[in-house]
Amino acid sequence: MRIILIGATGLIGRVLLERLSERHELIPVGHSSGENRVDITDQSSIRSLFEKVGRFDALVSAAGGARFGALEKLTDEDFAASLNDKLMGQINLVRLGLQSVNAGGSFTLTTGVLAHEPIQGSAAISLVNSGIEGFVRAASLELPRSLRINVVSPPFAVETLKELGMDESTGLPVASFARAYIEAVEGTHNGEVLDVRRLQ
Amino acid sequence: MRIILIGATGLIGRVLLERLSERHELIPVGHSSGENRVDITDQSSIRSLFEKVGRFDALVSAAGGARFGALEKLTDEDFAASLNDKLMGQINLVRLGLQSVNAGGSFTLTTGVLAHEPIQGSAAISLVNSGIEGFVRAASLELPRSLRINVVSPPFAVETLKELGMDESTGLPVASFARAYIEAVEGTHNGEVLDVRRLQ
Repeated sequence: MRIILIGATGLIGRVLLERLSERHELIPVGHSSGENRVDITDQSSIRSLFEKVGRFDALVSAAGGARFGALEKLTDEDFAASLNDKLMGQINLVRLGLQSVNAGGSFTLTTGVLAHEPIQGSAAISLVNSGIEGFVRAASLELPRSLRINVVSPPFAVETLKELGMDESTGLPVASFARAYIEAVEGTHNGEVLDVRRLQ
Repeated sequence: MRIILIGATGLIGRVLLERLSERHELIPVGHSSGENRVDITDQSSIRSLFEKVGRFDALVSAAGGARFGALEKLTDEDFAASLNDKLMGQINLVRLGLQSVNAGGSFTLTTGVLAHEPIQGSAAISLVNSGIEGFVRAASLELPRSLRINVVSPPFAVETLKELGMDESTGLPVASFARAYIEAVEGTHNGEVLDVRRLQ
């Protein structure tokens, strides 16, 4: 398959680039480095990417930021940026990518465990993650040409927890995230939230 | 309790006004009629409402629109309006209401069954409903002064299905929605999605 990987330079993206490349033709896309770049908060940037890349069989997004912060300190701008980036950014990859994806292809987005297991400070992130999951469930009912859409929900990566000085026991090594994405791309799932912890 | 009811002139709001008034002091708030009005898409309008109304013990929102439409026909404006109205509108009622709610008080928002049981055309609505639920789960962990926050998820009202000429058997009479809101306001729930169909 010809697979566009958005967020290819990130922690998860680097693992997916390596693992998916074993069996597929990958087109890695970064935010600010590499041959192919996209700013998912900018629809003209997304359009340019699809024009440049042409037809593809799968799009995998491991991209998009959302703001962490205490509920009473999160600003209007924190909410707007979170909605604009991780949520509508990934949704717009789907909306604008529909014209370029081959029949039978798929979209795989990324949320995270905070959708259903929030922590203090995750109000905007939990909103965004849950919202994406709701969109994916609904969009899966309407995709034409046997297209599929799913979302992968990873836990915290051990690598991230270590960097933040947090308890590593709640996380998993980022290398273990790959299986859920591979199932989403190569399997028959549609409209599902694939929980990385259940797909080890 | 002194309860602010947002959306008091709507289908659900009219039922809640009647039922909650039996035991509480209600402050009904409409969008475009009545003594108290608010446009939840406008933070200055929300601020004015709280300034006018003063301290309260509970806020119940049965307000906020989101756009129904085929995935490939939903416009940028449809998504933006949905996020700005039902999603951020209700969230901003909480963010701005925190200063005026008495200790031990509560916020109760409204989503709907399309969060988890989407239909064709519900992509933006399912996004919004699921996003609100994620926000509520997370925000419940951080509310000060023993405040609580919950969301009520109603099915389609029989009255709505009849009006739309749809199969009424999947709906419930709007009068039956009241119990979930009453439990949210008078009970000890926090961070929960109260499913109207399970609270008959």
